Amino acid sequence: MKREWDLLHTPGPTPIPPSVERAMNQPMIGHRGQKCKELLKDIAPRLKPVFGTSGEVLVLTGSGTSALEAAVVNTTQPGDEVIVVVAGAFGDRFAQICETYELNVHRIDVEWGKAVTVEQVESVLQSAEEPKAVFLTHCETSTGVMHPVEKVAERVKQLSDSLVIVDGVSSIGGAKIDMDRSGIDLVVSGSQKAMMLPPGLAFVAVGDQAWEAINQNERPRFYLDLKTYNKRLSEGQTPFTPALSLLFGLDEVLRLMEEEGLEQVFERHQTMKAMTRAAAEAMNLPLLVSEEDASSTVTSIKPTTFDAEELRKTANEEFGLILAGGQKHMKGEIFRIGHMGYSRPADVLRYISILEVILKRLGHPFESGKGSAAVQEAYLNGIKELK
Amino acid sequence: MKREWDLLHTPGPTPIPPSVERAMNQPMIGHRGQKCKELLKDIAPRLKPVFGTSGEVLVLTGSGTSALEAAVVNTTQPGDEVIVVVAGAFGDRFAQICETYELNVHRIDVEWGKAVTVEQVESVLQSAEEPKAVFLTHCETSTGVMHPVEKVAERVKQLSDSLVIVDGVSSIGGAKIDMDRSGIDLVVSGSQKAMMLPPGLAFVAVGDQAWEAINQNERPRFYLDLKTYNKRLSEGQTPFTPALSLLFGLDEVLRLMEEEGLEQVFERHQTMKAMTRAAAEAMNLPLLVSEEDASSTVTSIKPTTFDAEELRKTANEEFGLILAGGQKHMKGEIFRIGHMGYSRPADVLRYISILEVILKRLGHPFESGKGSAAVQEAYLNGIKELK
Repeated sequence: MKREWDLLHTPGPTPIPPSVERAMNQPMIGHRGQKCKELLKDIAPRLKPVFGTSGEVLVLTGSGTSALEAAVVNTTQPGDEVIVVVAGAFGDRFAQICETYELNVHRIDVEWGKAVTVEQVESVLQSAEEPKAVFLTHCETSTGVMHPVEKVAERVKQLSDSLVIVDGVSSIGGAKIDMDRSGIDLVVSGSQKAMMLPPGLAFVAVGDQAWEAINQNERPRFYLDLKTYNKRLSEGQTPFTPALSLLFGLDEVLRLMEEEGLEQVFERHQTMKAMTRAAAEAMNLPLLVSEEDASSTVTSIKPTTFDAEELRKTANEEFGLILAGGQKHMKGEIFRIGHMGYSRPADVLRYISILEVILKRLGHPFESGKGSAAVQEAYLNGIKELK
Repeated sequence: MKREWDLLHTPGPTPIPPSVERAMNQPMIGHRGQKCKELLKDIAPRLKPVFGTSGEVLVLTGSGTSALEAAVVNTTQPGDEVIVVVAGAFGDRFAQICETYELNVHRIDVEWGKAVTVEQVESVLQSAEEPKAVFLTHCETSTGVMHPVEKVAERVKQLSDSLVIVDGVSSIGGAKIDMDRSGIDLVVSGSQKAMMLPPGLAFVAVGDQAWEAINQNERPRFYLDLKTYNKRLSEGQTPFTPALSLLFGLDEVLRLMEEEGLEQVFERHQTMKAMTRAAAEAMNLPLLVSEEDASSTVTSIKPTTFDAEELRKTANEEFGLILAGGQKHMKGEIFRIGHMGYSRPADVLRYISILEVILKRLGHPFESGKGSAAVQEAYLNGIKELK
């Protein structure tokens, strides 16, 4: 089946809006010229509300992981104590980066599919030397859990001077976060999830306390040195040639978000979550994550009556519907549906109806049409369709 | 003036061919799916001849500088002795990265506008402890010098076991390099110069001796760990989400190069160099770099009768012709013309004629039409126009 007909519902990369495609598809410009300066100066303040901060949001050229690494190497030095919440593949990646850079890592291992609790963090925080930083994942993409990062940050700040550093790669642009109010010091993200762009840009939003740590930190770094990005940003520049076509696209992405309204964007994601979960229940599909812990950008299903990989294969071959599988020990055990970025309730109606067809064929026990009825009802009960 | 009319002749970013624009402008795909695997497996062997190697060429998501840093952190450990040739802003960047990562750097400072000689490298190589690596720039973008990296590599290999590591950011895809025959161990490059793509991809070509150093090297690294890229490449994957739209474009860039023929591509760049230099001489414009040392991808002019910045401003405002200025201490002293990637002799005819108009207006002493006559003659004497 040709790519043109694909229905991409992985939790990133995600589909690109046509106007963003057009915006990216423009002639190159010099990255030291006036046009690039104007573009960067235009984008900078508009990124801040997406992260809920009045601080700077730095734009790096790289995968999301480059921003995770930037968060680690800029704020810590070898031997520093840190706490890392690990409840999936991306929490584990944060821990791996911290270990690579010779930190003393206190892992809080949480069962995959569950969110960390404020109490768990509090207990580790109080049992050890005050850590330099607490690393958390906002949406754990590998399971579809949304960790209560704001609540954790508020508590950490009451109890300590530790930095709170959040991986927002698969949440930013789809889920609300209020860095400044909750006390989160640093949030990283990427372009290819709810930010509706191809992969290639990474974002780092930095608060005042994080800047203090960054400015004092003597650990060697060059490409990922946030001080340099900040200095050049104040001049309307980037230290190194940025991924210009993605910046052209980012300008349009921000325009789309402003047009819809950020609150509406976040509500649309909540609606898609509610629709997907209601349909799953009506189709007897076990949800991996509880309502309270579940992400508004990705939903994981853990089937018991059929093979998750067989469902993904059929969905892909017959309808071009691309779903994600499980990662690491969950490979083959779950499948994941991304509903973020350039996705709207109408797309959820479609993929639920497709799933009903496939489930019927796989002999899964459920009543035909129940999923569609439930997803429609959830939509009607929920927030209005994207205008 | 609108961007649509711009004539971009900086030494990167460079214009994008329409078929590459179209190739990039395609729906997103999952980066762990079959389509991405096929794309990566298709691209991998076709990159090798561009670098003149039978070794792997790794594709990173980042600016060219990310690949420079990857070259340093993967092959060296703190305290290692290294030689760095510095003859401009990018040689200086290599030295800065080496210093940041705590190497003992022996700089060979060469006057800006001149190429390093084999003898200079030989002399430093023999006067000190055998270095872990010799770092060189192929085309020094800031001056338009092409260093004799192959000759230097051959001599270094005769005299030592040092690695030879080359920054080919503004040469690869435009100038020939034979890694395997000359003994160059590692070449880095970027997407936005002669590779005809927007910025955002970085390349690292790695030979056997470099792999030995990389595999034994215990320096901490994560995002730029070349071992991981190599391991995942053998599985048709990348370790982190790659800049997919640029990979779609790279596939088409390689097709264009294969269609034209790599040797023809390199000859076209030589023709553009010869045309530009002949015209400059006929217009009484002092060339910064001698014929022997000059790059085939960028030409620097050092005017004496007018202000380089005023010429650039007029060229931009009146014709949308974007030229680069000087960097660091050469700011205001030179202007630079990029003729690489999606540029052909017809474009050189155009910018020379534009320069004649502007030089006339600036009161520069030269005979009108001499530049155009010279560029045309150089073209007729040179290699045939791109078919």
